[in-house]
Formats: sequence, C-alpha cells, structure tokens
Amino acid sequence: MPVVLVGAMVKGRPNFMAVAWFSKVNSNPPMMMVALGKRQYTGEGIMENGCFSVNLPGRDLVTETDYCGIVSGRREDKAKLFEVFYGESVGAPMIRECPVNYELRLAETVELPGTNLFIGEIVAAYVDEEKRSGQVPDVPLVEPFFLVESPPSHYFGLGPQVAHAFEVGKKLKLSNP
Amino acid sequence: MPVVLVGAMVKGRPNFMAVAWFSKVNSNPPMMMVALGKRQYTGEGIMENGCFSVNLPGRDLVTETDYCGIVSGRREDKAKLFEVFYGESVGAPMIRECPVNYELRLAETVELPGTNLFIGEIVAAYVDEEKRSGQVPDVPLVEPFFLVESPPSHYFGLGPQVAHAFEVGKKLKLSNP
Repeated sequence: MPVVLVGAMVKGRPNFMAVAWFSKVNSNPPMMMVALGKRQYTGEGIMENGCFSVNLPGRDLVTETDYCGIVSGRREDKAKLFEVFYGESVGAPMIRECPVNYELRLAETVELPGTNLFIGEIVAAYVDEEKRSGQVPDVPLVEPFFLVESPPSHYFGLGPQVAHAFEVGKKLKLSNP
Repeated sequence: MPVVLVGAMVKGRPNFMAVAWFSKVNSNPPMMMVALGKRQYTGEGIMENGCFSVNLPGRDLVTETDYCGIVSGRREDKAKLFEVFYGESVGAPMIRECPVNYELRLAETVELPGTNLFIGEIVAAYVDEEKRSGQVPDVPLVEPFFLVESPPSHYFGLGPQVAHAFEVGKKLKLSNP
C-alpha cells in the first residue's frame, strides 16, 4: 500500500502520522478514507475538528515518514520535522515538503473492531509546481513509496511503467458482438 | 493504488472486476475494503451472497486485469479468462493464476454518493507456493502493479527497496527522554 502522512490538529497542535491503510473511495465528490487504530492520537483530532489532511511524501522523506509511524504525538511534537501550512480550514495542517496534499472534511466515520475508518471529502488539493504534469501530479516525479507488510516490513519505490491503463486490455476480445 | 481483481458470484456465475480503490482496514480480525461504483455488476453479487474475493495479479496478468476493468460482466463472461477455484464458500470465486487470493465474508456496507464500500473479513488466504517467503507472500516475486490515475492513466510496477519500515525512522530523535 502507498504510504501517506495524515495530519490533524490535536489539542490545538498539528500532528502527523504515517498511514498505509488509505484509499480513494468516491469520485464525485472526490473522497478518501484512512483507517486508524482507535487509540491513535491523530484520530482524536479528526473527531474533534471534523477535518484532516492526507500528504503524499516522496522518497526523500522516508526517514521522517517512518518516524511518524513509530512515535506517537502524545510523546513527541512531530510537526517540528516539517514546515506546516494550512488551507481553508485551521483543522487540517499540511506538510510543505510533501509534493501532494489533500485537505479533507470528515464525511463519515465507520467503527470497526480495532480501527476507525475516517471517510473525508476532498475540499482542496495542492501539488508542488515542479511535480506536476499539467494540472495533475506527475507521479514518477513525486516518487511515492509503498509499505510491504510481509514481515520484515519494507518500503519500496515505484517501478517502471508496465502498460497503459484502460487501453492494454482492449486487445482481448472474448466474443464478437 | 495497487490493482486487484475482485471476485463475486453474480446470478450464479463467477465474475471478476479490476479495482484500485481497496485497502486493508483492520488487523484483528483481518479486514479489507473495496469501493465499487454503485452500478457495478460485481457489487450486485457481493450484496446477494455476502461474500467476495480479492485476488492480487502479477504483471503477467496486466492485459487480462485491464480487460476486467474495461468490460462489464453484464456483457462478457470474464471468468473464461481464468482458472476459477473456490475455498470455503461458493460465493467467493478466486483466480488460480493470481499468486495471492483472499476470501472474504461481507461484514459491513457503507453507502457513499457514487460507490458502495464493501468491508469484508478475511476468512482464508491462499498464496502460490513459489511466491512465498516462509508463510507470507514474497511481494517482489508476486510482481504487483499499481494504477496511477493521473490521466492518461498507467500501470507501474513495484520499484526497488527503499528502506526498512518501522526501523529507518529510529535514527531521528527529536528530544531526549
């Protein structure tokens, strides 16, 4: 799974945690979900303020990102690692060093046995000018990385382009119309 | 996002669709969610039978996977592309050619504006013997691929190992205890 940094204000201070359980979940309006352990400090802030951010780190931030997955905001002020900025809402701190940032308003919370699924509507997206291709992120330039959970867990980079999506499959024809 | 093939029985026949909006969402019990457009044929089957499968294709299946994302099961019998097998439940068809298969029981459905989030509990997992490292999938051998949605959309492979997860961040110390 791709690794992101989820941001929230907790007790009036910005906090960030590394999350690999996240996905886009709706197109119109654009929505994302993150699954956070119930005792996570960041989750408290999301519930308190009804908003959060999803920040996509590049490989140059792998050490800081990993740190944000190891250490709780209860113990450390992790925001010190980054230059923090805000968009439309003061409850969704974002990370300047991350080339892609999404600002979300909490739409729904789903309680599972060990986690809360926070489903948010994207209210704004920010992309580093140098990591864009037209209006959208140039993902190879962003250099996302992925958590492979099979122990021992590792982060892996993005590999080479394999095929055009929604195109390569057209050459298969099971039946003739 | 990593690309998977979601399997379900629809009107008594196995069907598969390509999905990139999926994530693990809980550890204990292990749970996954997939977000499917409300009119997707596969979603009908999940709601009908209360179970589904998540199959992780390798790069050798990129053409077949893409096809399963382009063409609806209403028009084509996509199961003809694969050798289909079943685990504990007859409602969760799985794909032999995919090196990793998860069999899920539907635990919860969350309705969003354009999609349904199907949250399932993993009841069994199957891993190709040649793609294992001990008891777990050897992910580089599995050769997963990822959908990058920025248009034009492309599939990308897994890149090189970047760092040890939950380890590399330990070298950062913001404060002394």
